[in-house]
Amino acid sequence: MGSDLPFINLADDGIVPTPREMARRLADLTADGDIAADYYGDGGPVEALERAVATVFAKERAVMVPTGTMANRLALQLMARGPGPRVIVHRDSHVFNDAGDSATASGITLVPVAGRGAGFDPEQVLAEIARAASARVKATIGGIVIETPSRRLHNRIFDQAARDGVVAVANTHGIPLLLDGARVFIESAWTGRSPSEIAKPFDFVYLSLYKYLTAPFGAVLAGPAAALDGLFHERRRQGGGLYQMWPAALLALDSLPSQTDLWRQTRLASDAVLAALRAGGAEVNIYPDGSNCATLSIVREAALFGDTGESARSARLKFASPSSGSLAIKANASWLLASPDDVANRILSALRL
Amino acid sequence: MGSDLPFINLADDGIVPTPREMARRLADLTADGDIAADYYGDGGPVEALERAVATVFAKERAVMVPTGTMANRLALQLMARGPGPRVIVHRDSHVFNDAGDSATASGITLVPVAGRGAGFDPEQVLAEIARAASARVKATIGGIVIETPSRRLHNRIFDQAARDGVVAVANTHGIPLLLDGARVFIESAWTGRSPSEIAKPFDFVYLSLYKYLTAPFGAVLAGPAAALDGLFHERRRQGGGLYQMWPAALLALDSLPSQTDLWRQTRLASDAVLAALRAGGAEVNIYPDGSNCATLSIVREAALFGDTGESARSARLKFASPSSGSLAIKANASWLLASPDDVANRILSALRL
Amino acid sequence: MGSDLPFINLADDGIVPTPREMARRLADLTADGDIAADYYGDGGPVEALERAVATVFAKERAVMVPTGTMANRLALQLMARGPGPRVIVHRDSHVFNDAGDSATASGITLVPVAGRGAGFDPEQVLAEIARAASARVKATIGGIVIETPSRRLHNRIFDQAARDGVVAVANTHGIPLLLDGARVFIESAWTGRSPSEIAKPFDFVYLSLYKYLTAPFGAVLAGPAAALDGLFHERRRQGGGLYQMWPAALLALDSLPSQTDLWRQTRLASDAVLAALRAGGAEVNIYPDGSNCATLSIVREAALFGDTGESARSARLKFASPSSGSLAIKANASWLLASPDDVANRILSALRL
Amino acid sequence: MGSDLPFINLADDGIVPTPREMARRLADLTADGDIAADYYGDGGPVEALERAVATVFAKERAVMVPTGTMANRLALQLMARGPGPRVIVHRDSHVFNDAGDSATASGITLVPVAGRGAGFDPEQVLAEIARAASARVKATIGGIVIETPSRRLHNRIFDQAARDGVVAVANTHGIPLLLDGARVFIESAWTGRSPSEIAKPFDFVYLSLYKYLTAPFGAVLAGPAAALDGLFHERRRQGGGLYQMWPAALLALDSLPSQTDLWRQTRLASDAVLAALRAGGAEVNIYPDGSNCATLSIVREAALFGDTGESARSARLKFASPSSGSLAIKANASWLLASPDDVANRILSALRL
Repeated sequence: MGSDLPFINLADDGIVPTPREMARRLADLTADGDIAADYYGDGGPVEALERAVATVFAKERAVMVPTGTMANRLALQLMARGPGPRVIVHRDSHVFNDAGDSATASGITLVPVAGRGAGFDPEQVLAEIARAASARVKATIGGIVIETPSRRLHNRIFDQAARDGVVAVANTHGIPLLLDGARVFIESAWTGRSPSEIAKPFDFVYLSLYKYLTAPFGAVLAGPAAALDGLFHERRRQGGGLYQMWPAALLALDSLPSQTDLWRQTRLASDAVLAALRAGGAEVNIYPDGSNCATLSIVREAALFGDTGESARSARLKFASPSSGSLAIKANASWLLASPDDVANRILSALRL
Repeated sequence: MGSDLPFINLADDGIVPTPREMARRLADLTADGDIAADYYGDGGPVEALERAVATVFAKERAVMVPTGTMANRLALQLMARGPGPRVIVHRDSHVFNDAGDSATASGITLVPVAGRGAGFDPEQVLAEIARAASARVKATIGGIVIETPSRRLHNRIFDQAARDGVVAVANTHGIPLLLDGARVFIESAWTGRSPSEIAKPFDFVYLSLYKYLTAPFGAVLAGPAAALDGLFHERRRQGGGLYQMWPAALLALDSLPSQTDLWRQTRLASDAVLAALRAGGAEVNIYPDGSNCATLSIVREAALFGDTGESARSARLKFASPSSGSLAIKANASWLLASPDDVANRILSALRL
Repeated sequence: MGSDLPFINLADDGIVPTPREMARRLADLTADGDIAADYYGDGGPVEALERAVATVFAKERAVMVPTGTMANRLALQLMARGPGPRVIVHRDSHVFNDAGDSATASGITLVPVAGRGAGFDPEQVLAEIARAASARVKATIGGIVIETPSRRLHNRIFDQAARDGVVAVANTHGIPLLLDGARVFIESAWTGRSPSEIAKPFDFVYLSLYKYLTAPFGAVLAGPAAALDGLFHERRRQGGGLYQMWPAALLALDSLPSQTDLWRQTRLASDAVLAALRAGGAEVNIYPDGSNCATLSIVREAALFGDTGESARSARLKFASPSSGSLAIKANASWLLASPDDVANRILSALRL
Repeated sequence: MGSDLPFINLADDGIVPTPREMARRLADLTADGDIAADYYGDGGPVEALERAVATVFAKERAVMVPTGTMANRLALQLMARGPGPRVIVHRDSHVFNDAGDSATASGITLVPVAGRGAGFDPEQVLAEIARAASARVKATIGGIVIETPSRRLHNRIFDQAARDGVVAVANTHGIPLLLDGARVFIESAWTGRSPSEIAKPFDFVYLSLYKYLTAPFGAVLAGPAAALDGLFHERRRQGGGLYQMWPAALLALDSLPSQTDLWRQTRLASDAVLAALRAGGAEVNIYPDGSNCATLSIVREAALFGDTGESARSARLKFASPSSGSLAIKANASWLLASPDDVANRILSALRL
């Protein structure tokens, strides 16, 4: 296949622009000279982005920080004040597995609960509340984190009924809720619920800016103004007070309005591609609670895939690394650059011996 | 029943001396005037106790601290150095439930695993090692805590085969092990293995001084000299540098040599009392992996029991508080103050309407 | 001199009882059998002592903890809440020099100010408030600690006018004040102000139980009920939840009522001894802002003094270790065991070649 | 004066590009399409910049982080390991005043010493080493930070003789040294010593990327490979693992080679401008140990200056805010955009009534 084929990304949740593409877009967005820089994260496109994200989630206030790790940590700190605070998380969540235990450094004890898929049950939350209440030394459940879709679980979605149950328990016991909504637009497209509907029961929501919003980095934490208004200082104290974040803010701000539409189209394309893959003989696994990720059975050797595998390069596809005969593929905006049949055929030929 | 009946404690793991009894014993132990005081925990009976406990566990060194909470925390700190350290604990363990999350304050992330009885399986440890290894940010399993017998689980004993498996995994992966052996002499009596045999696979062992060693407070942490030699400073830094601890050390030191014998007799007495209770019509539950604790079904109202219940007072018994129709009773040295039949009859009459 | 001479302590702020003496006194105090034990620091003589100390300082509430290090740390935590808290301390204070930097472990930044004697000036406090206010990242002065008399400075007293100025600044800026009053009864005797007068401007006061109150260990922190009522949990979380503290509480409680009288007499004895020392040819330095400590010039070699020096043993005196030709001596209750002339003569003979 | 006059910045250490200027430059630098992105700070221009900065300072390794606060904090953590670590800093340093006390959050106790100008004396270091050694609980001086030029002190330079003395003491006592060298090229131009000469005695050096290297954010920490190799994880754990930092790295990398030359010219321009200001009647204060910053006496009201003052706008000058009749001005690359006489004349007219 030729090198002028559009590049299709099967490994990520969004198109990752090249430095040249990103710099050109930045040049376009600043061409008229009216853009003001932020000053250590205050003002300019950063402020505009914070307002836009607050609106998307129908929250009072939002604050941009350089990483999701910091966004989650700050949210946990804001939630879980007081002595011996504990925060319930899914055992396969990003916060429990991939944040370097930074919550511990903030004095928070994470309480992992094993889940059904990407979710867990209100009964598990009640059991941990009871456990904390029985402690010889006061320990209180100060927060619950729900990550959905869940990255470690192939972007599966936290079951809505279980979620409603967890929210009800949290409300009864006055426990704040954080939505780790890095990929909330994906969930929105697959469930038909808007980001603000999804975010409604949560005190805090975090959105990633680089997974599909095409910024080089960044996250925004949305929530109550009373909690977030002073966050400027803590952001800086933790080393997140970048002198200027306007480039990341400007790119995300530009991408934000089209997300709902883009992901609706991506979902349609994904359905069509997966159907075509099955029609072409591929063994496709679709989770009942899944979103933009499916898995394919493969017989070829794993080394052909991954970032640098031959299968990938020749077909101008970016594959993830397979795991025990199974290859996860993720639909994203790059799937719209070719027809579903083209995408499916290129995948099928890469899968074949 | 008359007030000169010996008082039988069914609620604790040992006799709790009254202040008068304790003070008299202290006066006797210091009567010859040769006892020197320790100076902030250095020297005197404190040093003698540390040496005695090190010998009991066949470890190089031991250090006395004022509380078990501090002993466990110091052990965890010594085990789990480096960035992002995680320590595996039983979900029903003292460290996870009753230590005020002090491990968190030392920068340690506790990883609770649900157990079978008081134990957990090597496979669970392997799964958590794998999880930590898959982390985006380095997190390593820096320690494993085994609490046996387990207070929250009616002093049930961590299954030996599972324990051997966990130890083998820990050794393979170079993970230090802590025995929360607050009640190690109880386990010794019920398993027939000496404290040093039990402690052998562990890097660190903690022994409580007040549960049955009749001191007013205190714990001793035993382990390698290289780790414990400098602990004087950290003990003081954490607020555990009491000016003098000799009274507690002297009482524990005096009680220590007789423990093996005392608990062997207590076990025999316990067997006889439980048999007599069954013969007398009581419904007695004995755990297959239990030690000095059994549970009785009760029909009388709970308020009659507990510390101050009428049933207890009239029979000169100290009962625990029952929970949903079940009453836990614990054998200890006070059971040797009367014949098994007397003990059983006094319990039976307290249970009757 | 003969061995039936009363032993005079020149090195400490109080008589340090031998284990035999302490145990006998405990036996006497518990002889009538009415003393109930505390349960992890709740109830019994601990509660009685807490009430007595609260009364002495005219504060709402007091809580006993096992060490002064923990008392100071807890007070700092209670004072300095919120992000970036800073606490002003004297550069030669116990908190800055001898507490193992435990305040840091509680997230507090100590701001040492160099002092005039044991004091510092309101202008220095104002400068640090201004510095904190000019910070790029929010940092607030959350507390001021005044240690008086100051152990590292020969028990010199924080100048009253400077102190009034510091208090006025603290009040104006809403900054809480902690009195490190380990030795408050000494200051009381030398200034003629009662402990409650001294403690009045302070939110929190800490009193040591073993420096002259003859307990084996312990400290009491007094202050507002709202702050101290929940401290039980934090005390235990930090490893200070001793199973029983009644022996220490009982001894301190017994010593407390006589302190004012005892120190008044001690001061008179001290004046007389120092006058006799001068009359006998000793070079005596008395600080204008001093209390129970003076220094003597010595010409004999240092090794003769200290805990084990020959001069000390033969005269039944406990000396501190001298430093560059100067020997600090401290008056305490043991000075009342002989006439001032006797005490002075024994010191003079120990000083002579 | 007309609006096509070049804009002269008197308030900062460098030209602050507008978003349009920055984006255009980024587009140019990526135009040929060969630039690869970094992946969470690994590879691409980030790696190239790290190598370049390591070379500038003649250190083994360098690591980019998003902020100077994080760079300093990481350096302190790497320096001051073990129990009770203390780090000596200047009382007017950035670390002590403007980093949100983040060192405290890493368990480090800052020991501020008052300075002579931007420096302090070896005797002060020795006094703090002695103080730490006399502590009842072990506390060790684990590091010394030298900030030069010092931002809070008008970019004055740490006296070389005092610095040599401090370095000698540090070497004797095995204490690591950190150079807070955010502005090291300025010092280099004013002292004639190369950045590598300046950095030589230090274990770690931190360089800012946005003060004059024209990146939107960032800092690089250079030092021994053994210490820095694993820093990837800690950077991410602290929330500094930005998905892509190549835009900042690329801009700084492009600016780096010309710095020595640029600052030499800036110094010449500064000398000429200050001479012209004096010739024009201005009262100019130049510190004997100063660098690119001088102060002017002003009689006009303060509001005319600052970022938005009328004096500034009409003359196309960016002024700092004056403080009690004194206005600091800073030379930087923008001073090269006009002749020294022009720059001086524009300043003089803004100063006039």
